[in-house]
Amino acid sequence: MLDDRTIHFCRACGTAVRHEIPPEDNRPRAMCPACGTIHYVNPLNVVGTLPVWGDQVLLCRRNIEPRKGLWTLPAGFMELGETTAEGALRETEEEAGAHVALEGLLTVLNVARVGQVHFFYRARMLDTHLAPGPETQEARLFSEAEIPWEELAFRTVRETLQHYFRVRGQGDTGVHCIDIA
Amino acid sequence: MLDDRTIHFCRACGTAVRHEIPPEDNRPRAMCPACGTIHYVNPLNVVGTLPVWGDQVLLCRRNIEPRKGLWTLPAGFMELGETTAEGALRETEEEAGAHVALEGLLTVLNVARVGQVHFFYRARMLDTHLAPGPETQEARLFSEAEIPWEELAFRTVRETLQHYFRVRGQGDTGVHCIDIA
Repeated sequence: MLDDRTIHFCRACGTAVRHEIPPEDNRPRAMCPACGTIHYVNPLNVVGTLPVWGDQVLLCRRNIEPRKGLWTLPAGFMELGETTAEGALRETEEEAGAHVALEGLLTVLNVARVGQVHFFYRARMLDTHLAPGPETQEARLFSEAEIPWEELAFRTVRETLQHYFRVRGQGDTGVHCIDIA
Repeated sequence: MLDDRTIHFCRACGTAVRHEIPPEDNRPRAMCPACGTIHYVNPLNVVGTLPVWGDQVLLCRRNIEPRKGLWTLPAGFMELGETTAEGALRETEEEAGAHVALEGLLTVLNVARVGQVHFFYRARMLDTHLAPGPETQEARLFSEAEIPWEELAFRTVRETLQHYFRVRGQGDTGVHCIDIA
C-alpha cells in the first residue's frame, strides 16, 4: 500500500521543512532551513515473478490491502542492497514459498500515476511445493483457460500474464515495456 | 551524488525514530515511537539515453561531483510522476540540450552496492544542436574509435556503450540486463 510519503520534518535534524525550489533545481523539494538537507521523494520499484510449471502459472490470492482477496503474481517492493532479480526471488519465496529459477526479465511496467516501476521475471518452478506467507491467502496453479481475469489485483499483473501467454512458445525471450496510464 | 539517506527523525511528526524490526517484517526500519510511521529507504532509479547521430554517439563531460571532468551519458535520477522513458528524455534535454527520439530500452543495470537501478534508452538524435546545462562542461559526438574509455565516469556507462557497439547493426533491439558488482 502506498503510504503518505509527504515530508513535513527533516530526517537529519527534525526541523520542520519548507517546500521550495532549490538553487539549480526546477521543482519544489522539502528543504531543511536548519541543516540544509534537501529531501527527494523518488519512484519505487516493485519486483516479482511469473512462476511457470508446465502449462500452468502460479497466482497468489492477496491477504492484505489493497485488493485483498484478489489474485496477483508474487511481487513486492525492492529493498536496498538487492538487485531486481534478487528481490523478485525473495518476494516469490516470501509470498508463495515457491522454489523457482529465474529465466530472464519479462516485463518492465511504468505506473507513473503512483510513482512505481514494476519488474516481472519469468521463473521456472523447481517443484510444486508451496508455502504461502502471511500476505497470501492461497497460492495455486492455473492453466491459461483458468486464469481469473476478472479477479486480478493489478493492471501490471494482467499485462504481464497477457504478454506471457501471447509470446509463450514463440521463442521470444525479450523484455516487454509497457506504460500503465 | 548519494547523499546520506539515514533517517534520524520522523518525516510526519519530527520525533526521533527508533531502528527496529516492525511486526510482520524481517529487517530494521526507522519507526516513529510517537505517530507510528514506518520509514522505508528504497533503491533509486537513474534514467538516461545513448544518443546516436550516424555512426557517432553523444557523451557529456560532467561538471558536478562525483566524477567531475569525466565523460558520461546524459542521465539522472528518475522523478515522481514520470515514466522511465520520460525521465530519460528530460535528462537528455537538461544535460545536453539534445533533441532525440527514443528507440527502446537498451540496458537495465543493477548497482546494488549503491542501491540503484540504471535504465538507458537508445535515442536517435534529430539534429546536432547541443546546449549543455549547468551539470555538463561539454557535450560532443564520438565515433567508436574515439570513445574515451579510460575517462568514463561510471561502469554503467561503459557497459551500456560496450553493449551498444557489440549489437549495433545486428538488428538486436533487445534489452540487456547487467549486474554491476
